[in-house]
Amino acid sequence: MTTVSLDDAADQERKAPGRPRNARADAAIIEAVLELLSAGQSADALSMEAVAAKAGVGKATVYRRWPNKEALLIDAIRTMKGPPPVPAGESVREDLVMLIAGMRNKRMEHYGKVTACLVPELLKSPEMYTIYQSAMEPRRDVMRQVLVRGVANGDLRADLDIELTMLMLSGPTIAQNMLRWNPNVPDQGFAEALVDAVLRGAAA
Amino acid sequence: MTTVSLDDAADQERKAPGRPRNARADAAIIEAVLELLSAGQSADALSMEAVAAKAGVGKATVYRRWPNKEALLIDAIRTMKGPPPVPAGESVREDLVMLIAGMRNKRMEHYGKVTACLVPELLKSPEMYTIYQSAMEPRRDVMRQVLVRGVANGDLRADLDIELTMLMLSGPTIAQNMLRWNPNVPDQGFAEALVDAVLRGAAA
Repeated sequence: MTTVSLDDAADQERKAPGRPRNARADAAIIEAVLELLSAGQSADALSMEAVAAKAGVGKATVYRRWPNKEALLIDAIRTMKGPPPVPAGESVREDLVMLIAGMRNKRMEHYGKVTACLVPELLKSPEMYTIYQSAMEPRRDVMRQVLVRGVANGDLRADLDIELTMLMLSGPTIAQNMLRWNPNVPDQGFAEALVDAVLRGAAA
Repeated sequence: MTTVSLDDAADQERKAPGRPRNARADAAIIEAVLELLSAGQSADALSMEAVAAKAGVGKATVYRRWPNKEALLIDAIRTMKGPPPVPAGESVREDLVMLIAGMRNKRMEHYGKVTACLVPELLKSPEMYTIYQSAMEPRRDVMRQVLVRGVANGDLRADLDIELTMLMLSGPTIAQNMLRWNPNVPDQGFAEALVDAVLRGAAA
């Protein structure tokens, strides 16, 4: 069984100091957290036992790497977000479409559900909220810089409210990812339609 | 204790068929659900026992009115949303500001947290999602009709994508209510700033 082989690998590794961690078990554990959350498990109800079972590892393997559930959730958020995207930098419209399409694709919709399941936890714990915000800030700043560049090169209005514009691009995307808030807005061409609508008011 | 008096009232009422329900106990129970959810309790972890204790009634009083937790959550959502607002109908801008300010006020921020705590439940249960959508649709339609009227009287562009515009107004508001997604966007004047930015692209 997978449980045994991954645990064995972890044990072997523990016996060989200086070797890298058991990355395969770590990845399976993080993936298990994300799958449980996206299946609608609340962060509250999530147990280290359930994560271990889902990942096919022993509970000790989970605790060896993460001392508690909060630490594990933090790593799961960071993994889920991944490194921020890098815009081409040639056209404000193209860069924004790339960023929004990246938030709205199927993979991220899956992750939107994960975020949704973390929301009660985020609201309960100021520490989790701070962690979530700092996990998000690098990607937020990518969008900010696209808009700043657009203002600087005259594509966007000089008096544009950049922070509000970021929210106008991300908020609708988040509402659809988490709640499918308006089922009458089609997924097909979503990023282009939203960016064009926002730019209609933001263009110089 | 409150527990005793409300239970007594419910019992008396049960003995007098044809009399109205114990509305006071019902309201206390719904309020208890909303308070527990807004304090960060997940719908998953919420128990009928905890609701009864918080409301100061016996568990039997809760079960007399709601057969299970799902039925109770549905009623809590409906109560939380309340009747949809009625716009004055004189200015598209004023009507939209009223609707957005109503979504973003402190009372609704409290309820944004409640909705956030229901999100995992909504994602897990297609039935809960359908119920949530139908609870939301009357208010969504109020906003839709404001935009339809704006297009009809020439204030808004004839080719305006009305469903997308609804999402552009509500999505940022929801993202702030639930996640305080962009802490750099001030609460003060939020509705006016958002509506003006959307109208800049939507005006005829």
